Amino acid sequence: MNMSDARGARERLVVIGGDAAGMSAASQARRLKGPDELGIVAFERGHFTSFSACGIPYWVSGDVPDRDRLIARTAEEHRARDIDLRLRTEVTEIDLDRGRVRARDVDSGAESWTSYDKLVIATGARPIRPELPGMDAPGVHGVQTLDDGQALLDTLSRTRGPIDSVPPERRSRRRDPDRAQPLGPARVRGRDTGAHRRPGRAVVVGAGYIGVEMAEAMIKRGYEVTVVNRGEEPMATLDPDMGRLVREAMEGMGITMVNDAEVTGLLTGGDGGVRAVAAGDAEYPADVVVLGIGVRPETALARAAGLPLGEHGGLLTDRSMRVRGHENVWAGGDCVEVLDLVSGQQRHVPLGTHANKHGQIIGAGVGGGYATFPGVVGTAVSKVCDLEIARTGLREKDARRVGLRFEAVTIESTSRAGYYPDASPMTVKMLAELRTGRLLGVQIVGREGAGKRVDIAAVALTAGMTVEQITALDLGYAPPFSPVWDPVLVAARKAAAKIGPAL
Amino acid sequence: MNMSDARGARERLVVIGGDAAGMSAASQARRLKGPDELGIVAFERGHFTSFSACGIPYWVSGDVPDRDRLIARTAEEHRARDIDLRLRTEVTEIDLDRGRVRARDVDSGAESWTSYDKLVIATGARPIRPELPGMDAPGVHGVQTLDDGQALLDTLSRTRGPIDSVPPERRSRRRDPDRAQPLGPARVRGRDTGAHRRPGRAVVVGAGYIGVEMAEAMIKRGYEVTVVNRGEEPMATLDPDMGRLVREAMEGMGITMVNDAEVTGLLTGGDGGVRAVAAGDAEYPADVVVLGIGVRPETALARAAGLPLGEHGGLLTDRSMRVRGHENVWAGGDCVEVLDLVSGQQRHVPLGTHANKHGQIIGAGVGGGYATFPGVVGTAVSKVCDLEIARTGLREKDARRVGLRFEAVTIESTSRAGYYPDASPMTVKMLAELRTGRLLGVQIVGREGAGKRVDIAAVALTAGMTVEQITALDLGYAPPFSPVWDPVLVAARKAAAKIGPAL
Repeated sequence: MNMSDARGARERLVVIGGDAAGMSAASQARRLKGPDELGIVAFERGHFTSFSACGIPYWVSGDVPDRDRLIARTAEEHRARDIDLRLRTEVTEIDLDRGRVRARDVDSGAESWTSYDKLVIATGARPIRPELPGMDAPGVHGVQTLDDGQALLDTLSRTRGPIDSVPPERRSRRRDPDRAQPLGPARVRGRDTGAHRRPGRAVVVGAGYIGVEMAEAMIKRGYEVTVVNRGEEPMATLDPDMGRLVREAMEGMGITMVNDAEVTGLLTGGDGGVRAVAAGDAEYPADVVVLGIGVRPETALARAAGLPLGEHGGLLTDRSMRVRGHENVWAGGDCVEVLDLVSGQQRHVPLGTHANKHGQIIGAGVGGGYATFPGVVGTAVSKVCDLEIARTGLREKDARRVGLRFEAVTIESTSRAGYYPDASPMTVKMLAELRTGRLLGVQIVGREGAGKRVDIAAVALTAGMTVEQITALDLGYAPPFSPVWDPVLVAARKAAAKIGPAL
Repeated sequence: MNMSDARGARERLVVIGGDAAGMSAASQARRLKGPDELGIVAFERGHFTSFSACGIPYWVSGDVPDRDRLIARTAEEHRARDIDLRLRTEVTEIDLDRGRVRARDVDSGAESWTSYDKLVIATGARPIRPELPGMDAPGVHGVQTLDDGQALLDTLSRTRGPIDSVPPERRSRRRDPDRAQPLGPARVRGRDTGAHRRPGRAVVVGAGYIGVEMAEAMIKRGYEVTVVNRGEEPMATLDPDMGRLVREAMEGMGITMVNDAEVTGLLTGGDGGVRAVAAGDAEYPADVVVLGIGVRPETALARAAGLPLGEHGGLLTDRSMRVRGHENVWAGGDCVEVLDLVSGQQRHVPLGTHANKHGQIIGAGVGGGYATFPGVVGTAVSKVCDLEIARTGLREKDARRVGLRFEAVTIESTSRAGYYPDASPMTVKMLAELRTGRLLGVQIVGREGAGKRVDIAAVALTAGMTVEQITALDLGYAPPFSPVWDPVLVAARKAAAKIGPAL
């Protein structure tokens, strides 16, 4: 134990990772304890802190005009609050026995040890990058970090003309009525590409959230977009019958959707840059390739230190986000596993909203307070142009895997009263447990007003409600907001009738 | 008891009132029992069945192009399902002892008795119309029924030019970017009134849901609008501090808002038509007056029959919507009181969404099944142009009245991530009980994306969640849908910190 921090504080907190979870923890700890009581040192191997990775697709698309808007709090702001933030400094070892970490200056290579009284591990996740030929070719991009986003934008400006080729009015307005229409390929081509020039071709590998959001971004940038997807349908976080609706809608936007395709390599051209994506026997020409395959917990350091990891490779914590068995070590964000309240099992759910909650809870604990993270129900929402996609709880295969039997129903309804202008169709799928009628999961695919309806189900799942209870929920109703029976209630009625015909 | 219906059915159901609750009950009962088992006779004193009263403001505004779109199911459709529907026929007496009702043909005045085995009372609500001079003058309109709506539209066509003066494109499009801007009076005047003609002047009496929705409708019709309101601020279903935000926004739209004003009479012109609204010493010139003062349960028949009424004048039922103490009599919709699950007291909440639920539950009971209505939490949502207003649970004064002590917090946030285009501000007020931290109520005033967020709180209230539990909810997050901390979570964090500083 250190009797005092180098700058005179009685205790020292070391934070590994300067993004959402780590810096939220540092900030919350600082709120509770001043610099005399607690010294805080935070190590971040990248150039930036506290940025919104979820915002990168909208920066690439041009909806968000510049990078700095994605930074919730700059390094300078953290330092102004007496957080000793060390950018471009990578922690290479955790020495639990002696309570210290070894850090390396990324640029100079110099290494040194820093001791801690309390440690927060917020090392995040690393993108899955299969080891395939051509993976490192120019024009192949991940979209995990702000540096990734900038590199992609640089490629776009080379392959398709300057970034500013997107007319400014398309960047600043979201409610452009044009966007409510499916964007056919002809229109995309015609819109901002001169006839003298072939439109750029983008291949997005992966059709999860990042993949579909990047497909939108590339469409908005005027590219012809192909999405190459290993699964049966896009959005594997949905059941395939709901994923099919996403595929059909994306095809309606002029996006080429390729399912059941395992990428086998990236082909390069004479200049060494990417030329095509190979999947089995097929080749998909590409001026730029975006990798949106997903992420895994970044826990190599924790593993080397002997900290407990779960079956998904994430750190295991208790309810207060302390690493199990380690009183003075916390972990949060994309590097931990969380309890799924519906299945009762551990999951890895890399989402900024959880990372921020974890940070708050860790900061409270470090600061001597009390807060807990009960777990997740698996809520996620996304969009592709005007298509909204949401899910919470278990898919059919999740339920089966944990031994739950269920009824599944699917209904069609509208976002507003049917007679109200712009009432848009939505499909709601709902799973309910046999016998108990307990809600197990909801999936929604629709247009404006569809996505955030999943929150109704998220709260109901958290509360352990049955579908019968959901049918009676007192939800907000007025013609511009909902049909007189909200679509979630319609699904619940159908599910309740299947569980127990009641009559 | 009738051994058989006139048409040979073994039992007869009589329904009084052919709107949402009554006809939902009839339809659901028919679904469960065929015409051989159950004869169904439904009496409706008006011209229409199963219409959306909530849709009338949008028909008057021109958003809904014609009346028939507000009719969910026509008389012919009901009759095709073997429901003996008698329009323009008013029930004038319920004879509980002999199990019969007396009905009068509104046009001919002819009366006759119809016996029943099972009775459903769905007589709805009647608008409050204070007995003031000039109340029956031409140009003074309620907006309860489709006939009311048509009469108002007829007046509008006289006082302001034909209904078609609203350009068709303004009727069919909701996402007109213009509407996202406050509509100043100058623009309203300039839009569809020639310079040679004074714009019509509308006074809306009352500033509850109907009042503010009608203010929007009259603005869209090109009128100069004054809202005369008895209360301290508009939207008395909100606390005054939140009502003030509504007033300010409506003033920003060019609506003249008059608070603390009791209407003392309506002044008429030489032609006998309304000329102005008098409130105390002030006069507000009016070519048309819309009454949006609210409604009371229509329970004169039930009172005369000796059925149990509550303190708000509504019928009292059990959980299965049976009238208390009467095995074969059900009641639902705007004529009943409902249990407020938050306060534990009875309330009168005239909303189509409850009426439809009641109808389903009654129909199940009549058909020999089982379903119950647990109660309400008091959710309501409305809009005025692009301003969205929502509430659920208790206001400060409600909580005080039932002896609950609480902390109240108010926060400002945005509908989307702050950096995402069209992130719009919203204000969320939250009440939480002292000591337990139980959520008591939420009020939201904002722009697009604000209103339906109240559903999160509605479900949490139903589940009896504490604000601490709400802080951990796994809600849908992505930059186009929400900040990383949803505004409801931000309010819950602030409330939780006030309830128990935890740290």
